[in-house]
Amino acid sequence: MPRQDKAAVRAVLDAVPAGGRRALTAPEAKVIADAYGIPVPAEALAECADDAVALADRIGFPVVLKIVSPDIVHKTDAGGVRVGVASPADVRTAFTSIVASARAYSPDAVIRGVQVQQMVPSGTEVLVGTVTDPTFGKIVAFGLGGVLVEVLKDITFRLAPASRDDALSMLDSIRAAEILRGVRGGAAVDRAALASLIVAVSELAADFPEIAEIDLNPVFASAGGVMAADVRILLDPVPAVRRRTYSRTEILASMRRLMEPRSVAVIGASNEDGKIGNSVMRNLVDGGFAGEIHPVNPRADDILGRKAYKSVMDVPGEPDVAVFAIPAKLVASALEEVGRKGIPNAVLIPSGFAETGEHALQDEIVAVAERHGVRLLGPNIYGYYSTWQDLCATFCTPYDVKGGVALTSQSGGIGMAILGFARTTKTGVSAIVGLGNKSDLDEDDLLTWFGEDPHTQCIAMHLEDLKDGRAFVEAARATVPKKPVVVLKAGRTSAGARAAGSHTGALAGDDAVYEDILRQAGVIRAPGLNDMLEYARALPVLPAPRGDNVVIITGAGGSGVLLSDAIVDNGLSLMEIPPDLDAAFKAFIPPFGAAGNPIDITGGEPPSTYEATIRLGLEDPRIHALVLGYWHTIVTPPMVFAELTARVVAEFRARGIEKPVVASLAGDVEVEEACQYLYERGVVAYPYTTEKPVEVLGAKYRWARAAGLLT
Amino acid sequence: MPRQDKAAVRAVLDAVPAGGRRALTAPEAKVIADAYGIPVPAEALAECADDAVALADRIGFPVVLKIVSPDIVHKTDAGGVRVGVASPADVRTAFTSIVASARAYSPDAVIRGVQVQQMVPSGTEVLVGTVTDPTFGKIVAFGLGGVLVEVLKDITFRLAPASRDDALSMLDSIRAAEILRGVRGGAAVDRAALASLIVAVSELAADFPEIAEIDLNPVFASAGGVMAADVRILLDPVPAVRRRTYSRTEILASMRRLMEPRSVAVIGASNEDGKIGNSVMRNLVDGGFAGEIHPVNPRADDILGRKAYKSVMDVPGEPDVAVFAIPAKLVASALEEVGRKGIPNAVLIPSGFAETGEHALQDEIVAVAERHGVRLLGPNIYGYYSTWQDLCATFCTPYDVKGGVALTSQSGGIGMAILGFARTTKTGVSAIVGLGNKSDLDEDDLLTWFGEDPHTQCIAMHLEDLKDGRAFVEAARATVPKKPVVVLKAGRTSAGARAAGSHTGALAGDDAVYEDILRQAGVIRAPGLNDMLEYARALPVLPAPRGDNVVIITGAGGSGVLLSDAIVDNGLSLMEIPPDLDAAFKAFIPPFGAAGNPIDITGGEPPSTYEATIRLGLEDPRIHALVLGYWHTIVTPPMVFAELTARVVAEFRARGIEKPVVASLAGDVEVEEACQYLYERGVVAYPYTTEKPVEVLGAKYRWARAAGLLT
Repeated sequence: MPRQDKAAVRAVLDAVPAGGRRALTAPEAKVIADAYGIPVPAEALAECADDAVALADRIGFPVVLKIVSPDIVHKTDAGGVRVGVASPADVRTAFTSIVASARAYSPDAVIRGVQVQQMVPSGTEVLVGTVTDPTFGKIVAFGLGGVLVEVLKDITFRLAPASRDDALSMLDSIRAAEILRGVRGGAAVDRAALASLIVAVSELAADFPEIAEIDLNPVFASAGGVMAADVRILLDPVPAVRRRTYSRTEILASMRRLMEPRSVAVIGASNEDGKIGNSVMRNLVDGGFAGEIHPVNPRADDILGRKAYKSVMDVPGEPDVAVFAIPAKLVASALEEVGRKGIPNAVLIPSGFAETGEHALQDEIVAVAERHGVRLLGPNIYGYYSTWQDLCATFCTPYDVKGGVALTSQSGGIGMAILGFARTTKTGVSAIVGLGNKSDLDEDDLLTWFGEDPHTQCIAMHLEDLKDGRAFVEAARATVPKKPVVVLKAGRTSAGARAAGSHTGALAGDDAVYEDILRQAGVIRAPGLNDMLEYARALPVLPAPRGDNVVIITGAGGSGVLLSDAIVDNGLSLMEIPPDLDAAFKAFIPPFGAAGNPIDITGGEPPSTYEATIRLGLEDPRIHALVLGYWHTIVTPPMVFAELTARVVAEFRARGIEKPVVASLAGDVEVEEACQYLYERGVVAYPYTTEKPVEVLGAKYRWARAAGLLT
Repeated sequence: MPRQDKAAVRAVLDAVPAGGRRALTAPEAKVIADAYGIPVPAEALAECADDAVALADRIGFPVVLKIVSPDIVHKTDAGGVRVGVASPADVRTAFTSIVASARAYSPDAVIRGVQVQQMVPSGTEVLVGTVTDPTFGKIVAFGLGGVLVEVLKDITFRLAPASRDDALSMLDSIRAAEILRGVRGGAAVDRAALASLIVAVSELAADFPEIAEIDLNPVFASAGGVMAADVRILLDPVPAVRRRTYSRTEILASMRRLMEPRSVAVIGASNEDGKIGNSVMRNLVDGGFAGEIHPVNPRADDILGRKAYKSVMDVPGEPDVAVFAIPAKLVASALEEVGRKGIPNAVLIPSGFAETGEHALQDEIVAVAERHGVRLLGPNIYGYYSTWQDLCATFCTPYDVKGGVALTSQSGGIGMAILGFARTTKTGVSAIVGLGNKSDLDEDDLLTWFGEDPHTQCIAMHLEDLKDGRAFVEAARATVPKKPVVVLKAGRTSAGARAAGSHTGALAGDDAVYEDILRQAGVIRAPGLNDMLEYARALPVLPAPRGDNVVIITGAGGSGVLLSDAIVDNGLSLMEIPPDLDAAFKAFIPPFGAAGNPIDITGGEPPSTYEATIRLGLEDPRIHALVLGYWHTIVTPPMVFAELTARVVAEFRARGIEKPVVASLAGDVEVEEACQYLYERGVVAYPYTTEKPVEVLGAKYRWARAAGLLT
């Protein structure tokens, strides 16, 4: 790692007048670059021709000579620039000639001397920069330079500071990565030097909060090393405000009481049909919650047959959660009481806060909560479900299919879509949580909890923004090795209205940054709502793959072709079948069938052919995942296929052989029942689509890779 | 258009020894380029310095000088090259010096003189070429040149010859199109000159079948014009074999008798349950076909109560279709009788032909059919449905939901998926046709028929290959102005194992060519099976849009964001709402709701708010399409939303105001029934997805653009 002289950088930055100019001068930028080992052309000022020759000798030929005069702006017009000066004699001649030309051009100009500068070696033009992202803070960017890449926006991002591995991964993450490895006989660039440069720039940005943007453009990268031809540094004198943070232990403690409460108070509980406070009470009761439920309502003695309290202060014991079902303007004072009562969690269903422009009202409740250490869920939410606790603290209808996926949504509408989808597909759920305005609790708190929750095997989150991208990445990195995290990021395509002062800034569209950084955090990004829901349903059902070899077994050649397309689309690998295995499959299929991969058992085969080939696929340890293509025939009807497949898979699971198996069923409507039957038995199956089963398998593979399960 | 001297090209090509070398020499290529007005550097041989000066004067300075000697291979080593020679005096000096150097280098060399060549002007490097595609024949390619584009494969294709409009569209079809328009203050290239070059190259390839590939790489394009620095031409002495073709009139005549038959013979009809000949008979009878059904079976007197004939020759009248349900090896002789009987269509259900390696058997039946002029459907198919005729000539189960989409599939498995999907979604179908081995009838024949069929409003085709890409494009171009054509091309991602002799050839991956040429033909390409099925279901239901302005009306802000993402993903335009219209919408929604676009009416609004805003959206002529985002609440339950939306849309349709309306319903399971209700009433609605309704609307827009309905 090159030396880092933080004091030198600090000295330059401190010398810039506060609130003054935003851009550093070139000499200031050069001092900073040198301090962080960022290679820039060597240069020095020569006051006479002898000086110039000596400097050029030290720097190495060829050099560039430029007149230095505060009075000459257009150096070239003044005859004040010579490039490619290649010998001591030429330097001497050039010095004299430059000074003479400058004097002739502007007789009164003060001439400080001549700058002697190293010629930048040629190479591939790349760009390295940093920006301060509103979500993720300091991020580092890398891309090819030049006009073509500007047009194609072929650039990649990482959190700053970037590790050496991060930096190396950036070199492979651009679409034109092949260029860096050398094409058409060209030499590869010095990857180590380029990675070091990226790391140094990212550390510089991370070490000095007031550096808003750094732009090294172009950097010339070649087999011999890298050099930045231009360094531009922009300052941002306004420091970012950090919100209140909680420790992991604090988060887990309050989240445990939220998700596994023993006592819940409902503020605004009501006997009146159609009121939210009535729906919440009914859902808590009908949902079968076994803990205490305490209605709070100053104008009722009992609600749904339970004793009601005038104030939350009167509720007996130590409630873990207060669910609010009262108008927005009454929330602050009730929350004050909740705080005084020592209840750690307030679930704020009411709307009428920031989402309707009532920012002051929201600020007020946040202040109350912070004063008392109450964590807020919402406001402006449907509530939440904690299925394994039979807890439905929501005005929506109860949900009771217990299972492995925790779902969260920022939007209430999306929450309702989650509920409907889960119900119709019988998706096994551990929790559904509305996040709404995220005045306090947000995705990283929930991720921290669900990461530890033994009921949760997969987390799927719909979000429109992240309040603190770094906290989310940290929580995701801690969770992904244990279970998959799926994110549907809405607002992908909104033109990020970002005020950009640099080239890097202009290229850092909101979504490009999210995309790269979420991927680096190991998050599986769902392209759309339905994809998120299908991933949520499937991922807990599928076992993790142990290797890359995917095999397609199909009764329909046509499905095989489409399934192969889907394999490639989803970044999966069709296994190259070794000869012995090919022969083994061939033994089961008709002579005109095709082994290889897809293994086409041909249409019209009896159940025994499906069974024999699926058994072989599960048995052979070189195969890691199966994709089945079923074709509805009289000989092997849908439910016969479903039953045999489920039976064989279960038998192998009992023997400890667990491989992901997905299926595409082509046939008449009976295939729908067969798919549901298979799904409930751990085989992810879909009718009328060859894409979905492979997409879901692809999501599982993306997780397995991120979790380090595949090497 | 530049002159085209075909005789000059023919002379060059005829002079190449038959079966000899594949590549033309540079001088041969130059003659051909000149003959088609393809700009290449001017050049001529100078035998003395005076000649050289005169030539350079004529060509224009600067010039390149190169020694011409059959004995000097490495011209530069011999000091035999000078570039950038800029004046008559310099030409004279260079001539003398080159000849002297060459003599010094190789005293015995025969020196013919010095080539004086125009310097290629600098500019943007592009590539123009042609290849001979196995599916589409001669195609022309255009892309940026240089190593970066080689890596990024940014290239586009059209059928050759390309029209001027084709050529201009190619300049906009590459991802880096902006480069050509000038970026960072750079000048735009001469688009007219570049288009002329593309047209000329494409015509050259089309005019001379034996030219297999042309590679102009690089071409330098600038504001001042274009010039090809290198022209490479490859020959292919083996002419392609053309299959038998039928005229449009012939196709329509036989297709009408196939799809609207009055009499059908079933060869191999059977009383035995489980036999294909039994299933076909039962489906014909149970499907309600009102025409004559004649079983043919030498070993039965009657089948399903109908008189059976020993031979098709005995069948009374003039059957329009003979459906074959007999083993493969018996087909040829039965087909001979069908031909003698004058039956125009043979539907060959049996498998056991080319798909199992029995190519000779297939060749035999094709020969029999061609001799008699019998058109063959199949072999190796499930049969076909002609719904409006109540005709189910298939061994699958009957289908009776009459409607506007004709579906075809090359694969039987996909045919079963079509059937199941159609049944479960109640998709209105005009026909389902299996194509199987496509020994004769193929997609272009069917497209020709369905284009004329008044029952068919949309055609959706699954295919793995096209036997004749040009015939398909021709049929598609004739059909698309009348009705949408959807294609699911399977085998997208298979690495096209193409023997490529040129740069252009290497870049012409199978799928890239299909993609560009199908798009040019106005075909809507479905990315996957389920997409094809959804397009098939939706497109006949949706009216055509009359303009680009799409408006989202949503009860859930979260859906609005995701629907906006989908709008951008599908190439649609969110309308910029003018102030008066914005005010009009605002009048209906709560003060904290957001007009603009999406129009967020906010959750919890009553039916009247949905109705008022939908009415306004349909009423205002500046709005061309509506995307609705529904959020399930107690105030406006799903079926209430569905009923009001269907009613309002119907009312406007009755008034002659037809706009496409699609909807995403977020809610509990009741939204499924609401979606089906809406779909059946012309509003394309989906639960649990924001992507699908917009994707389908996007498909309708792609068609409307291709059909010229949007300007």
